[in-house]
Amino acid sequence: MNVGFLGLGNMGRGIAGNLLKAGHGVAVWNRTPGRADDLKTAGATLASTPAEAAKAGVAITMLADDHAVESVVFGDNGILRALPRGGVHISMSTISVALCERLTASHREAGEQFVSAPVFGRPEAAAAAKLFVIPAGSDEALKRCEPLFGAIAQRTLVVGEEPKSANVVKLAGNFLIASTIESFGEAFALARKSGIAAPKFLEILTSTVFTAPFHQGYGGIIAREEYDPAGFAAVLGLKDVRLALAAADSVGVPMPVASVVRDRFQAAVGRGYRDKDWSVIAKLAAEDSGL
Amino acid sequence: MNVGFLGLGNMGRGIAGNLLKAGHGVAVWNRTPGRADDLKTAGATLASTPAEAAKAGVAITMLADDHAVESVVFGDNGILRALPRGGVHISMSTISVALCERLTASHREAGEQFVSAPVFGRPEAAAAAKLFVIPAGSDEALKRCEPLFGAIAQRTLVVGEEPKSANVVKLAGNFLIASTIESFGEAFALARKSGIAAPKFLEILTSTVFTAPFHQGYGGIIAREEYDPAGFAAVLGLKDVRLALAAADSVGVPMPVASVVRDRFQAAVGRGYRDKDWSVIAKLAAEDSGL
Amino acid sequence: MNVGFLGLGNMGRGIAGNLLKAGHGVAVWNRTPGRADDLKTAGATLASTPAEAAKAGVAITMLADDHAVESVVFGDNGILRALPRGGVHISMSTISVALCERLTASHREAGEQFVSAPVFGRPEAAAAAKLFVIPAGSDEALKRCEPLFGAIAQRTLVVGEEPKSANVVKLAGNFLIASTIESFGEAFALARKSGIAAPKFLEILTSTVFTAPFHQGYGGIIAREEYDPAGFAAVLGLKDVRLALAAADSVGVPMPVASVVRDRFQAAVGRGYRDKDWSVIAKLAAEDSGL
Amino acid sequence: MNVGFLGLGNMGRGIAGNLLKAGHGVAVWNRTPGRADDLKTAGATLASTPAEAAKAGVAITMLADDHAVESVVFGDNGILRALPRGGVHISMSTISVALCERLTASHREAGEQFVSAPVFGRPEAAAAAKLFVIPAGSDEALKRCEPLFGAIAQRTLVVGEEPKSANVVKLAGNFLIASTIESFGEAFALARKSGIAAPKFLEILTSTVFTAPFHQGYGGIIAREEYDPAGFAAVLGLKDVRLALAAADSVGVPMPVASVVRDRFQAAVGRGYRDKDWSVIAKLAAEDSGL
Repeated sequence: MNVGFLGLGNMGRGIAGNLLKAGHGVAVWNRTPGRADDLKTAGATLASTPAEAAKAGVAITMLADDHAVESVVFGDNGILRALPRGGVHISMSTISVALCERLTASHREAGEQFVSAPVFGRPEAAAAAKLFVIPAGSDEALKRCEPLFGAIAQRTLVVGEEPKSANVVKLAGNFLIASTIESFGEAFALARKSGIAAPKFLEILTSTVFTAPFHQGYGGIIAREEYDPAGFAAVLGLKDVRLALAAADSVGVPMPVASVVRDRFQAAVGRGYRDKDWSVIAKLAAEDSGL
Repeated sequence: MNVGFLGLGNMGRGIAGNLLKAGHGVAVWNRTPGRADDLKTAGATLASTPAEAAKAGVAITMLADDHAVESVVFGDNGILRALPRGGVHISMSTISVALCERLTASHREAGEQFVSAPVFGRPEAAAAAKLFVIPAGSDEALKRCEPLFGAIAQRTLVVGEEPKSANVVKLAGNFLIASTIESFGEAFALARKSGIAAPKFLEILTSTVFTAPFHQGYGGIIAREEYDPAGFAAVLGLKDVRLALAAADSVGVPMPVASVVRDRFQAAVGRGYRDKDWSVIAKLAAEDSGL
Repeated sequence: MNVGFLGLGNMGRGIAGNLLKAGHGVAVWNRTPGRADDLKTAGATLASTPAEAAKAGVAITMLADDHAVESVVFGDNGILRALPRGGVHISMSTISVALCERLTASHREAGEQFVSAPVFGRPEAAAAAKLFVIPAGSDEALKRCEPLFGAIAQRTLVVGEEPKSANVVKLAGNFLIASTIESFGEAFALARKSGIAAPKFLEILTSTVFTAPFHQGYGGIIAREEYDPAGFAAVLGLKDVRLALAAADSVGVPMPVASVVRDRFQAAVGRGYRDKDWSVIAKLAAEDSGL
Repeated sequence: MNVGFLGLGNMGRGIAGNLLKAGHGVAVWNRTPGRADDLKTAGATLASTPAEAAKAGVAITMLADDHAVESVVFGDNGILRALPRGGVHISMSTISVALCERLTASHREAGEQFVSAPVFGRPEAAAAAKLFVIPAGSDEALKRCEPLFGAIAQRTLVVGEEPKSANVVKLAGNFLIASTIESFGEAFALARKSGIAAPKFLEILTSTVFTAPFHQGYGGIIAREEYDPAGFAAVLGLKDVRLALAAADSVGVPMPVASVVRDRFQAAVGRGYRDKDWSVIAKLAAEDSGL
């Protein structure tokens, strides 16, 4: 299948590479050029505008935030105008529920299809085609996307027919990861100040109850206090929890732990840790404990 | 080995049964009699006082709270006085760090050994000899306990030499479970009010990132809204988070998520759910969202 | 001076009445007609559209929320288009900082002046010309507004030249009132469950440290548990704290108490108290305590 | 009246001085000697032990914390043993509800009277005989204390017959002051980051709604960022909020704002501000905002 791929960050490059490996034709576009060299070698073509990338009839966006998505979708050179009738936009970015609703409506009006397909997984998982894709959209559109998801995911789990439901699940999932990191931060501060070595504490946690890979992953970063380089920056964690809270606010759900976590991310930015790994909120818990 | 076993609640009966199965001699004692019938059939003898149970030289306590432990340890018929010199008290209860320090000192003064050996696992795990035991105490004392732990645990993870360090790990672990339940409660409220069915939401969470058994276990209870019967009551959750906060307070660690969770458990009691499963705090999140 | 006055709610009717009493000419407009009878008797004329009200050259808006303000300002019959060059729009509504910025820019582009002039005071204070007005805008525009503010306020306190600064102060002030209500709610629950009668508790608080009139006012409502009728509804409290948090979010300020209070207002709505006085959050504190 | 006075800190010296001025005979005792010189000049006698101070039949304690009170009350040289039958102990310290209950019971058993009489007011108010005394105890005991309270207070407000009720009110009051400080800290951070000068912000707050003297007092410290010297240290604020939470915990009241405030005080200690004025928690709010 021929697709346009917009957004060559750490996640996007891995995904685009796997689409190429699976035999798809990929026209890539990035706001700042020069990140496509490896992909060109692997067979990608370069699109000079979002519109050019969208000519293939399938446009995949994997961008930083709402603003970045809006800037490639709307406007004269945007994919909304450029997609052919019946074309499909697959949005993999973690964006607001509100923008997702707007995209759903805009593409429908234009006679196009819209699939929200956020993913779980860090850049290494993207590179290894081991992502989890959680798409939502019409059955027809999802069917069409199957070969693409198959090329990048270890598993695809359909959320439902309404695109925004996938965004809610993605935002809820990121909140759950973030709240686990925060709770780990508090628990590690307690353990350390009680004289228990962090690696020993981690070993017991992950050998007993807290056995999911992300427990080991973030627990390890916290135990080693190794917040650089960032797999996912604190400022992005702030963005995602903020989006989760906005989604909750719009449907009338109080989320007290999400508020605590949002405040921690905000304080992390305020105290100079904006570009550290988002698990750096555990460092704030340590500092507040006098560690 | 001959042991006295004090406390025949849901956890204690399973543990004592497995000690018998492994060939140990077990004298059981319970505050309210009549819970020992099955164990008697399986070979246990009945002790009429804590002191009588302690005569064996090894006394295991698995009781509800600090008060219950104090009442069997101290006083004329308590195990502190009854244990022979060199005897060992193995405390499996989830008790305060402060009481653990007191027990450590008291047994030392009496020329006895003290091992704190809390466990992770629900009653079914206790019955199936699948607990995780996380003991702390002197090397010599721990060595002596090995055959006992081997009879009841799928794995034993030594925390260290200071008994109270095991209590800190246990309390931190229970806090981490409780904070995950609270966060799940908030996330499920968000999902449901966004039109996503709870079972679908759970399936995606547990198929992707949240793959530890307790995610499935508590997520399932929340998705089915099945807070009866309680595997572990809300009022006990309150007790444990309170103990975690007390431990944190004594070493100067602020734990904002623990405070949120404590307030939820307190509100659960205030709103009439004291005896529901502790995951009932997810129901409060739903109620506060108008569900 | 001739002014157009838009918004005849509990606050607006009092303010418009005092403008008339002070000898100003007032053309009133309200979205739902029929609330102007008393004002007509007192000399007001009726405007059939926002544009007609704005013809006087000075338009005052006192409306429920952002949406209501947008609907009378923008569009074909809006006051932005209708004000003469050099005209002034005085916004007394509690609106978002973001909308205030947009109004500032829009009026400037149109060659008009914009003054943000929120007020502190409940409907009785509006009726008695005892409001506090906290305006912000250019010196010239503020000078022009002086006779109007003088007619409705016990005191006018200029915040500065940037209109939005007045909104920030108003939102911060409402947050401070709301957080005091929440803290009172918690403290009254503690006192009552400790066997201290609420009126006695209130008397001591307000006779010693908590001597501001709003302490007595909201403390009295809480002590009497008299949340009906609402002087200011819980759902409006939710709106205002939400706006304070949005303002804080946009400048990178974590406000943990504001988050707690927002969650309480959200829970108040979720638990059926949306139209009670906003001090009803104290009732939630009581309920969560088993009262 | 002849009284023994124990505890010559900033508060105690002022109170004892006013008792002397009013013509009472005062025997003073302090743990660390040498703070009584001025009082001696003014006519006080020195007691070498708590017991000696208590011989007068009336013992007033104004000490730092539970521990300090326990050390002068219990034991061989304590006032419990030294007071004559029918003697009275007036406790002005901010102590735990639990200790207050113990004192009530112990003095009753000894045939003595116990009055809990905490005060509101800073050291300057103590020196100027402008305290608010909020006593609780039997009518008979309170009647006896009247001339003493009259000598030190601008007003005496009886809480009730149960001594601990006075402690609850005192702790609740200190929580309400602390939560106002925290909320001010958040609001000032919002104002400053929004470009509003702190003194201007304060002026508007205190000229409109927030007109109690403590608003002006703490608001001024925050606006000037003048946390040294401490009128009341952060570490004592931590103690008092902790006691309020303990009291709430014992009667089943969740206090989410109190938890936030407690965590702030704990973080203040952790981040090196233990001996600053307790309003220093506003500085943490500023730091977390990047100020």
